[in-house]
Parts: sequence; structure tokens; C-alpha cells
Amino acid sequence: MSGNSPAKPVNDSARPVDWLLYNADWLLTCDPLMHRHSPGAIAIEASRIAAAGPSEEIRRAFRGRREADLSGCLLMPGLVNTHTHAAMTLFRGIADDIPLKQWLEGVIFPLEGHFVNPRNVYTGTLLATVEMLLGGTTTFCDGYFFEHEAARAAMDSGMRAVMGQGILDFPTPDQPDPARYLRKCETFLSDFPGDGKRVRPSLFCHAPYTCSPETLRTVKAVCRKHGILFQTHLAETAGEVDGIVGMYGRRPGEHLSGLGILDSLTLCAHSIWLTNEEILAIARSDASISHCPESAMKLASGVAAISDFLSHGARVGLGTDGSASNNDLDMFSEMDTCAKLHKVVNNDPTACPAETVLKMATLGGACAIGLGEETGSLEAGKKADIVLIDLNRAHITPLYDPVSHIVYSALRSDVKAVWVDGRQVVAHGKVLTVDQKDVLAEANRIGAIIARREF
Amino acid sequence: MSGNSPAKPVNDSARPVDWLLYNADWLLTCDPLMHRHSPGAIAIEASRIAAAGPSEEIRRAFRGRREADLSGCLLMPGLVNTHTHAAMTLFRGIADDIPLKQWLEGVIFPLEGHFVNPRNVYTGTLLATVEMLLGGTTTFCDGYFFEHEAARAAMDSGMRAVMGQGILDFPTPDQPDPARYLRKCETFLSDFPGDGKRVRPSLFCHAPYTCSPETLRTVKAVCRKHGILFQTHLAETAGEVDGIVGMYGRRPGEHLSGLGILDSLTLCAHSIWLTNEEILAIARSDASISHCPESAMKLASGVAAISDFLSHGARVGLGTDGSASNNDLDMFSEMDTCAKLHKVVNNDPTACPAETVLKMATLGGACAIGLGEETGSLEAGKKADIVLIDLNRAHITPLYDPVSHIVYSALRSDVKAVWVDGRQVVAHGKVLTVDQKDVLAEANRIGAIIARREF
Repeated sequence: MSGNSPAKPVNDSARPVDWLLYNADWLLTCDPLMHRHSPGAIAIEASRIAAAGPSEEIRRAFRGRREADLSGCLLMPGLVNTHTHAAMTLFRGIADDIPLKQWLEGVIFPLEGHFVNPRNVYTGTLLATVEMLLGGTTTFCDGYFFEHEAARAAMDSGMRAVMGQGILDFPTPDQPDPARYLRKCETFLSDFPGDGKRVRPSLFCHAPYTCSPETLRTVKAVCRKHGILFQTHLAETAGEVDGIVGMYGRRPGEHLSGLGILDSLTLCAHSIWLTNEEILAIARSDASISHCPESAMKLASGVAAISDFLSHGARVGLGTDGSASNNDLDMFSEMDTCAKLHKVVNNDPTACPAETVLKMATLGGACAIGLGEETGSLEAGKKADIVLIDLNRAHITPLYDPVSHIVYSALRSDVKAVWVDGRQVVAHGKVLTVDQKDVLAEANRIGAIIARREF
Repeated sequence: MSGNSPAKPVNDSARPVDWLLYNADWLLTCDPLMHRHSPGAIAIEASRIAAAGPSEEIRRAFRGRREADLSGCLLMPGLVNTHTHAAMTLFRGIADDIPLKQWLEGVIFPLEGHFVNPRNVYTGTLLATVEMLLGGTTTFCDGYFFEHEAARAAMDSGMRAVMGQGILDFPTPDQPDPARYLRKCETFLSDFPGDGKRVRPSLFCHAPYTCSPETLRTVKAVCRKHGILFQTHLAETAGEVDGIVGMYGRRPGEHLSGLGILDSLTLCAHSIWLTNEEILAIARSDASISHCPESAMKLASGVAAISDFLSHGARVGLGTDGSASNNDLDMFSEMDTCAKLHKVVNNDPTACPAETVLKMATLGGACAIGLGEETGSLEAGKKADIVLIDLNRAHITPLYDPVSHIVYSALRSDVKAVWVDGRQVVAHGKVLTVDQKDVLAEANRIGAIIARREF
């Protein structure tokens, strides 16, 4: 992955670049037309892709300060996880298979009250980034408390991320006085770590049933002022629809639409219990949805009408949700489940074909979180967020269609190397940016404290 | 995994055994009461488990000719894949996302006509065994053509298996004249490789719509005579029900029941479109079902009423089906999907809890295929079919409940070592019984020929 081994004669007219990744059995660009090249190559210069295309063509045009022959491997864009609460890795598997109300009110909320603090959010998020990077996810869109600490973890991990500070009209671990939410937003934005490029701030109004119309409108106005992504959960459960109808006399999608919240920098997670009219309104507004099939299956929330969203031209990204309700951050398994779930639910084996799902997990996801110009596909000028898959595995042998294998057969453990922003962050199944052993040890230490809880 | 490193004083009263696997963070026995031990240990003598239980207790009673300290690991029984067509690995991903009729009649049947021959069945099955062993599956129940060759592959792989020769009233790749099916059965049984213990023969009548009542009855009689498992697909699609009702004036479950086919050595794969009365009849007859959720999702066949089967006391095992319709042989992903699917379909987050699913994939599966006395749990006297999981992974950190992690978070690539019949067959992610590289190369060679097909 890092050797200097060009067996070809030096080509003086070739442009020097930082990395030349060539001779990959397959290059899946995930560009809008889903071009594939076999064999394929990528030239990386600084943080960006200088070129991606047929291997011979790229090798003629570029020479790499570092070069790697990727025979037996596949190149694809890094996956984009459009919805998670990364720090909740610390609560993974602590309660499953119980009714939603009991899970939330009896387990998750008390746990969050006791154990969500800056240090744990940092560690839980860092643990999540290790899991995501090893699994080929290079970008994630997050929402949680003490999100400033979560953003620090994202910075340290080397990942690309959109980090949403959670806002509710109720006391939260990081804001005991909900009336001060606007101040919370301003502090979060002014103190945000880094330069706001690779890791960006966002505001996350928890849901229309936990945030008043005024809170929703005000927070969206702050987002517009700063040009950042506004996030919310929308219509995750049938009960939520009844609640919103009871409170506001209109359904959740109509409610957001009526408040003027929906635009191209609004991301609605879940979006399960929406009418065709609400789906159409979201599509027309250019707002996006994050589809999290596995979490919604596990919590028995329902199945979003993804085919309807797509046929109306809505922007749809895929997400895992937090790992307390999944219980992982595995975008490969999420793709597989997504492709299969919509087939059986719609009684249609042609629903959600592999290519559609791969697009949701890459370029579609990047567009959904406002990063469509930056990442999600392997195209010249985009950030070099790249995943290398080892094809030399029994479960993806033989290979007839690489897209089929990526969606239906590959595992996140087939990821051999990862680059984010032109920097190699995973090699041979190890994260290079953080000390994996230390992160796991610290997570286990916190986990042992959480396990001893007495409530 | 193979060192001699007892740091304890030699205990002369301890019984010598072949292997002493001790100090595992968790031992999941998957016995009928799902006992767990932490830390846990297993003593293996020849092909069987001498004891399994609390680590200190086992260490006091036994000393191993080989000992391994399994700190940071989890021991569980090998997984049991109750339904597959192993050789179909060679058709993995060749056609997806198309209507069932087109998939079967336009792709799979022509492919089988051209490429199903003894050599390919051997290679495809061997490839499947590599995938299954690496993924912690130690037992599989198969059905295909040239099953004698598939059984040879199972023998060579070191796996435990029940190998079902496929029978149809139509010409098949291995039996152009369907009238000679009885002769086919007899030859298969008389020529079966090995001693019929670790790898056992079975007969597989494809389905009630492809086998006449006479064929079903006759083949079942042969199975009874030899005391072997009878397999069939049952009620996989809604269309099949209509067909059987049209032909025989009764539904598929009633049909099998009326023919006297159902008993404790009959395995009905899929069993999706059955009424409550048919489910009850299967449960009362002591016949088993193989539940293959992922394949039925991908083909949009439907969702079997597993909770009903279980509440009626039916024996239910989990299976992947062939990898042309899954597209893998991954029992970890199958458990995860199974647990989630039934929740969302039944609008009940308590449906199919993790422990129920783990049981289906272990002891339940072993019982379903007639091997309940031999495998499926870690108990003294049973065959030593054991999987070692490496817990030192980000995606299963921290750990509150090992059963939750095995079902919802672990990957088949977390499997570190595997024993079948007391013999170590996987170490450090490599199969020890066959030359993995040769198997993949031969599968790729055949795949390249298949890819060039002109139909």
C-alpha cells in the first residue's frame, strides 16, 4: 500500500502526484452514471482526486510519489453514514428486544442522564470512528450531546463528518436549562474545533414532538445564517404522527413544511410514517432523508417508502442510526439489509436494486448531508475519500458483478485500506490515526462503570 | 491456539485430554437452558467434549495435551446452516434484482443445465465449506445435484454435514431420465463417501410441485428405511400454494401431511405460506422447518411466521439458502437479519429476541436436521464443534451481553478458530483442512468460463 514499485519506465511527461493507485480489478466511481472501470486507477494530489479512470490511461498521465499495484482489489468511494449518534457505541447491546417505550424511558434516557459527559462522548465517538473507518465509512453525519467533544473525536480520527449539536425543549445532559438553547447553538458554533472544513458543524433539533415550532424555526434560522445542515428526526413511529396531529392539527411532514423548515440543507432522519403528499413535499423542497432500515427494523418502527422517495426525485442517504439500536455502524450490512427489506415488504424482487442502494450509501448520502460537491464519488476534483476492498476472499468468489458483491456479499472486514482527504487512515485492517488499543481499553473501562449501574 | 503453556502447577489427579480451552471471557453453551459461564472452559477428548463449564472447575478436573488461554475471546458452539445448495457459490451474484420467474427460468435453470457437473459441484461445494468454516459454521444441511461429489467436498473440508441428493420429476443435470429416480437414490446411498457419520446422506425431493405424490411417498419410504433425513422445499411462494391447491385440492402443508411425509426426520425449507392449521400440523408431527429469511427477502418470497412455529413448539433451524439468492453463507448476518425482520414485520420489538435466534442457529438447527444428539451445543458427550470469537474488536466493544453481541454486532470475520469433531479446522482466520488459495483459484477459473456463457 505504501511501497515505491513502478515496474514501468519513467514517463517524463507524466504529472507527479502524491499517490498513484493503479491496476485495481475494479474501480466503482459511484458518479451520477455509476461508471465502472476494469482495471481502474486513481491519482491523488494533496487532499483531492486528480483523476480516476481506466488504469492504463491514468498510468500514462501520472506518476506517483507513492504507487500501489492493486491487482486483486476493488476501489470504491468511502461510504457515507448519514445518520448516527456515534457516542452511543458505549451503550451498544445494553438493552435489546424490549418495547420501545421501556427501551427509551427505562434504559436509554436514564443511561444518558448518568453517563453522557464530555469525556464519554469523546471516547464513545472515537470508538465509533475506529469501527466506521475499519468498515470503509469515511464520512458520517452525527447528532448528540456535548457535540463539541464528538467533533474533537472526529477531527482526531481523520474522518470527514457533519457534527450536529442536539437541541430539545427539555433538560439534556449538556443543557439543563432548555430556555438557553439559542445560546447553546451560538457557543457550539463559535467554539467548534478545526477549520470547519473536513469536520463541519450542524444543529440537530431532536424531533417535532420534542422541539416547539419556535425552537425549530429559530434553530433553522441559525443554520441558514451559517450555511450549515439542519437535522431532525421525522416520523420515526406511528405514535409520533398521532402526537403531532394532536398538538398541531397537521402531520409531521406538513408541520415541518408549514414552518418553512424544509430546504436543501435540511436532513430528515427516518421519515417512515409519511403520506405520499408529505413525501412529495420533501422531494419538491429539495430536503433530504436519511434512511436507517436496520434500526427501524430492530425498534419495530416501520419501513420507509424509499421507492416513493426515489421516484419523486428526493435525495436519500443511508444511515445506521446509533449503535444502541442497530447494534453497529456497519454500512455494508446496512446496504445488504436495505436492498433485501424493500423487496420483501413490497413483494417485488426488483425493488431497491444493488446499484440504487450503493448510490444511497455513497453519492446519494453525500448529497443528502450537503457534501455532494466534496465526497461520495471517485471523480477528478473531489476529495480523495477512498476505500480499497480485498477481493481475494471465499465469500466474494467468483465475481460476476462487483456492485452485486459490494451490496450483497462483501463484509466491512474486506476493507484493506482507506484514504480520507488524501491521507491514508487505514492500512491492513488497522486504523493509522488513533491508537486503536487505547481507544478500546478506555471504552471498556467506561463500559465496566456503566455495567455496574444501579437503576 | 496450539501452545503448551500451563502456568499452573501440574495436577496429577487431573484427567488428561487432547485440548483444554480455558479462561474464555464467555462460554455460551447454547444448551436447552442457554447456560453461560464467565470465564468458561472446554475439555476435548478425541472427537467429543469431555466437559464444558466454569473455567476454574474445568481446569481443576482436566489437563490438556494442548492448552490455550482464551482471555479476550468467547467460546460458542459451531453454527448450523440448515438449508443450502452449497455448490451454487459458483453462481453467486450472477443475477440479482429481477423477477423470480426470470431469475429461475432465464438464468439459474440454464446455468445449471450447462455448468452443473461433478467437477463443478465438488469445487463449488468446497468453496462453500471454506466460506462457512471461516464464518463459524461447522454443520450444514445441503441439497443439490451430483450430491455424491458435494459430499466428497464436505468430507475433505472437515465439516459436519447432511448431504441431500436432489430428486425431481423432471430431467436434471445428474438424472436425464426422471423415471429412474429410485435407482438414483439407491446408487447415491450405496456409493456415499465416508462412513456416513460426520457427513451423512439425505434425500431431497425438490418440492411438492416438482415431485408427484408417488415420488414424495417413495423417497420418504427410502429415507425411513435408511433412517436418514428427508428434505423438501415447502410453500416458498404464494404462487406455489395456488398451484398445489389447483393440482391436489389441498394446500402444500395439508398435502405433505396427507401423504404421511411429516415426521421427526422431515425438514421443510422455507415454510412461508402456511396457515396456522398447517403450522400446527407440522409442529404436532415433529417435523422441522428451515427458516431462510435473507433469501426469502431477496427473492421477495415472503416472511415465515416463525413466532407461530415456535409458540406451537415446532423445531426451527436457521439457514442461508444457496448463495445465488442471498448472496452468501453467512450465519452471523442471517441471525442479525432474522432478529430484526420479525420485529418490523410483526410491529413488535420483542419478537425473535437474540437468544431465540441464537438457539435457532445452533441447537435448534442441529435438532431440525436430526443431529440434536451430536452437535449444536457445548455439553459433555457431544461432538466438539466449537467456534472461538475474538472479542477485541471495536464493533463489539464494550460488551454488556454476549448473546446480544453475537446476534446483533459480531461479524463472521470475528471468528478466530474453529474445531469440528475435535479437530481444529480454522486457525487465525485460515482454513487448515484444504488449500484455500487453490480452491479460490479453481472457483475463479470456473467462474471465468461461466461468465463467457452465450445464453
